[in-house]
Amino acid sequence: MEKIKGLIDAPFTPMLANGDVNPDPIPAYAAMLAKNGLKGVFINGSSGEGYMLTPEERMLLAEKWIQAAPAGFKVIVHVGSCCLRESVHLAAHAAEIGAWGIGAMAPPFPKIARIEELVAYCETIAAAAPGLPFYYYHIPAFNGAYLPMVDLLKAVDGRIPNFAGIKYTYESLYEYNQCRLYKNGKYDMLHGQDETILPSLTQGTEGGIGGTTNYNGRELTGIIEAWQRGDLETAREKQNFAQAVINVICKYRGNIVGGKRIMKLIGFDLGPNRIPFRNMTDDEEAAMKQELDSIGFFERCNQF
Amino acid sequence: MEKIKGLIDAPFTPMLANGDVNPDPIPAYAAMLAKNGLKGVFINGSSGEGYMLTPEERMLLAEKWIQAAPAGFKVIVHVGSCCLRESVHLAAHAAEIGAWGIGAMAPPFPKIARIEELVAYCETIAAAAPGLPFYYYHIPAFNGAYLPMVDLLKAVDGRIPNFAGIKYTYESLYEYNQCRLYKNGKYDMLHGQDETILPSLTQGTEGGIGGTTNYNGRELTGIIEAWQRGDLETAREKQNFAQAVINVICKYRGNIVGGKRIMKLIGFDLGPNRIPFRNMTDDEEAAMKQELDSIGFFERCNQF
Amino acid sequence: MEKIKGLIDAPFTPMLANGDVNPDPIPAYAAMLAKNGLKGVFINGSSGEGYMLTPEERMLLAEKWIQAAPAGFKVIVHVGSCCLRESVHLAAHAAEIGAWGIGAMAPPFPKIARIEELVAYCETIAAAAPGLPFYYYHIPAFNGAYLPMVDLLKAVDGRIPNFAGIKYTYESLYEYNQCRLYKNGKYDMLHGQDETILPSLTQGTEGGIGGTTNYNGRELTGIIEAWQRGDLETAREKQNFAQAVINVICKYRGNIVGGKRIMKLIGFDLGPNRIPFRNMTDDEEAAMKQELDSIGFFERCNQF
Amino acid sequence: MEKIKGLIDAPFTPMLANGDVNPDPIPAYAAMLAKNGLKGVFINGSSGEGYMLTPEERMLLAEKWIQAAPAGFKVIVHVGSCCLRESVHLAAHAAEIGAWGIGAMAPPFPKIARIEELVAYCETIAAAAPGLPFYYYHIPAFNGAYLPMVDLLKAVDGRIPNFAGIKYTYESLYEYNQCRLYKNGKYDMLHGQDETILPSLTQGTEGGIGGTTNYNGRELTGIIEAWQRGDLETAREKQNFAQAVINVICKYRGNIVGGKRIMKLIGFDLGPNRIPFRNMTDDEEAAMKQELDSIGFFERCNQF
Repeated sequence: MEKIKGLIDAPFTPMLANGDVNPDPIPAYAAMLAKNGLKGVFINGSSGEGYMLTPEERMLLAEKWIQAAPAGFKVIVHVGSCCLRESVHLAAHAAEIGAWGIGAMAPPFPKIARIEELVAYCETIAAAAPGLPFYYYHIPAFNGAYLPMVDLLKAVDGRIPNFAGIKYTYESLYEYNQCRLYKNGKYDMLHGQDETILPSLTQGTEGGIGGTTNYNGRELTGIIEAWQRGDLETAREKQNFAQAVINVICKYRGNIVGGKRIMKLIGFDLGPNRIPFRNMTDDEEAAMKQELDSIGFFERCNQF
Repeated sequence: MEKIKGLIDAPFTPMLANGDVNPDPIPAYAAMLAKNGLKGVFINGSSGEGYMLTPEERMLLAEKWIQAAPAGFKVIVHVGSCCLRESVHLAAHAAEIGAWGIGAMAPPFPKIARIEELVAYCETIAAAAPGLPFYYYHIPAFNGAYLPMVDLLKAVDGRIPNFAGIKYTYESLYEYNQCRLYKNGKYDMLHGQDETILPSLTQGTEGGIGGTTNYNGRELTGIIEAWQRGDLETAREKQNFAQAVINVICKYRGNIVGGKRIMKLIGFDLGPNRIPFRNMTDDEEAAMKQELDSIGFFERCNQF
Repeated sequence: MEKIKGLIDAPFTPMLANGDVNPDPIPAYAAMLAKNGLKGVFINGSSGEGYMLTPEERMLLAEKWIQAAPAGFKVIVHVGSCCLRESVHLAAHAAEIGAWGIGAMAPPFPKIARIEELVAYCETIAAAAPGLPFYYYHIPAFNGAYLPMVDLLKAVDGRIPNFAGIKYTYESLYEYNQCRLYKNGKYDMLHGQDETILPSLTQGTEGGIGGTTNYNGRELTGIIEAWQRGDLETAREKQNFAQAVINVICKYRGNIVGGKRIMKLIGFDLGPNRIPFRNMTDDEEAAMKQELDSIGFFERCNQF
Repeated sequence: MEKIKGLIDAPFTPMLANGDVNPDPIPAYAAMLAKNGLKGVFINGSSGEGYMLTPEERMLLAEKWIQAAPAGFKVIVHVGSCCLRESVHLAAHAAEIGAWGIGAMAPPFPKIARIEELVAYCETIAAAAPGLPFYYYHIPAFNGAYLPMVDLLKAVDGRIPNFAGIKYTYESLYEYNQCRLYKNGKYDMLHGQDETILPSLTQGTEGGIGGTTNYNGRELTGIIEAWQRGDLETAREKQNFAQAVINVICKYRGNIVGGKRIMKLIGFDLGPNRIPFRNMTDDEEAAMKQELDSIGFFERCNQF
């Protein structure tokens, strides 16, 4: 199976002021990401508020992204849901409309407690789009599925033919690495924390999915480029800069809320977040802007 | 606002062997519950695998239960969802078709971390069915919303006019009691743990929602009756028996899986559970049956 | 084995302003508790900052309490420690000086993860004072030992001859009750949450250990007395009052810090807490005093 | 203040079969570690079962290690305890007998919940050995002190003069890195996870403390050597091998139990662990030996 090289972006979902999904900015969004070195998008995931969209909205977004994708730009559709039948429906739809791949996180309810439950869940979804690579999206902080990922690989190996790999969004770089080493790299392990791209490169990582790549993509792809040409100093400087940006966002409700608002600040307004997320006040926005300014973010962010 | 007296049941969702929702048993189900002293149903909640149903299935079930309800038998529709727009739609539908009330648990994703988020969530749903009492369903073990409930009452008081109270499914009997005492009982606090009905009666509890009432309703309503006539010994014996039944279920994946299977054992097959729940094997069913038999469950359970 | 009837108090450790242990108030302390209906003390536990005392201080306190105890007033010495050899030493010392019983919580480090580890720990301590009843002190919020207590009883039964029972300080009244029911009450289950004395009485509880009994002992023992004479209204009023007091303490760092400071407010200064506890400022003390005053605490508290 | 370059070892505490501390092997132990490239020891910490030793045993061990240390071989004495007065005593003793430095983890009880509590705790200990560097040992999995470490640095800066840095044993490589970057590296951040030495080197890490360095020290120090000479392949191979060894230990109760038993397997028996740790059976030891053999551990481990 093809392995992803480089970084995939997890886009925000564009919305109107009233909270309706707004597909209009998607072509420009896709073009901007491609221009900045991103290799594709992982849509309707956590950054995209996927769980907070209706199935119809999710399908509309998938269609629009696939239409807008430049040649070779991968669209992976997150189809996870508490309702497995909905996931199956979304997976089949993704296949039909020409998605490059699909993915699903564990449902947050009911909480997955055993590998066997997770395998049954993934298996059913993967079978609904048998021609597409399926990625398990491991983000236990969001769903409580703190399960050992090497055990997942062992369990799906030989059972789910289109299981492609894992989007690994968790702190344990060494568990991530053990997954990479499983059967000499049988599965595609996508690194999923923008804070540790450089450390993971020592392990042999080649691909990942980013959340802050939406507005800091050049710097993040720059880490990998610098590393590949042997320029550790530049790679380190860019990783440290990426961290400084993340530190600001962490004070403003994280990437889903704070990051989405940064898009507005760089001239690409994607609208509000849905309840129960709390949108920033104008004062908070101004404070965040100032903090980003003080670390030189707007000078370096030159994405359009 | 009217307060619920007695016990409401949280029914399982009847399914065919292939997992499709099967509304056919609902009239008999409602009649059985009413006969055994239950005052209504809280449908599409956790026992009913509500999060694992499509919106269409949830609406169908609501319609069928309302049609089947005997006179005075309350149908409360759980409309919680990770997607608030779906919840709003379900709430409006429940009002339209004549539900007695609605309820919603906190979404498991994104995890609610502040009272303000929870209030905004409840407010939006409650406003979609302004003529119905809205119950917040507090079950933090399922969604991580470990928030102080007295603070919730303070926050909704004066803001959400149809906020009726809380279905309280958590260990802390003393927090439960403080909610009861808030403004001398302004809100309807529904006790939500079948294991502690008797202890809570000392606090003045008058209503609750049960999960094991599906198959052990006579014993559980019997606790309240015995207490009310001053027969502590009988109340205690029935509470201890209820606990013994729950102890068996706990070994067989809890009420959603094990309890649903008990329905089959007492002659009212409601079908399987949906993935990621793991259904029991025949051997497990036989073992559970034997354990229930050894505590005299089938003799005492005389529901039909 | 004798079962404890009524309430045992968990006293604070008297200290001088410089933090040294001060045994001088102990005789008056013991007399006051006995006068207010307490049946004994559980010393050097969490309320007594036992883990924060040196072994020498712990032994000194044990000696002083035993000397000061009125006839029939039980002194149970908490001997738990991360260092089992220290616990063994303290247990043997307690036996030598005439303690009524001993107790130990699970060590917070290393965290106990299995019943077998806990049994080995309890067994070694209990064997060092074979003539005394040994109580396991279950307070998992403090040490992370979230283990099923019925399983502990099964494991110690037949193996630790002087295992007397459990001081149960955890939310689950129904697990508590199952321990009570084990072999028809073979073990002495001491209820350990002042917030739920009344509810637990429906289960048949006869004894417990309190932390707020230090300054609210008459009200708490009054709950049991009222219940026993069939006066539910008074029992409920006293339980609700006890809760109101606890609600104030919860705002002021809980019983160990806030409760110890209440002793000063009622004229029996026991000094500061040890680091890492943060002692109250004078302003905080004044604010707490006012809150206690507003619920009528000082009028009702008439302990001396 | 001097920064530590290279790896420090966290030794096991040698014990006799009856569990008594046995200082006899310490000179050979120190010599072996020095020979294999370790720069010193961090004694009486978690690997050394420090919390499970009496104060007298801890002081004896400190004396013996200091006597046995080759020239330039640093002895850092862990003095953390639930009883701060004991820690103060141990810190003063360490200074008196010529320790290179001291360290302390947060007490597991009472659980530290605020930076201010942690600072007061560290401050008191550090002040008892004002001439020695004090290291905070961050290992929240063992004591629940999940506090932000950059905030700790800010809080101690200007307040605790001999605060040297942090032994950082937690998953978050990026928080670790932010601590490193604080005031351009004002504090000595010791990397504390043998699984991620190589990734952390990209960040600029120069020193660390290991637990598996006891029996795998040549390989772990070899990672740093290979990295420094630009040989990424060898560094990666050694890191992966170190992980393979750790994977085996994880199946056998982790480093404290399983790792200590490996010492016996390589001919340097350090005796059993103390209760509540469960020692391995002979069968388990044999199984572990076979697993280690299958990854070539005994061939590569050539420490003596």
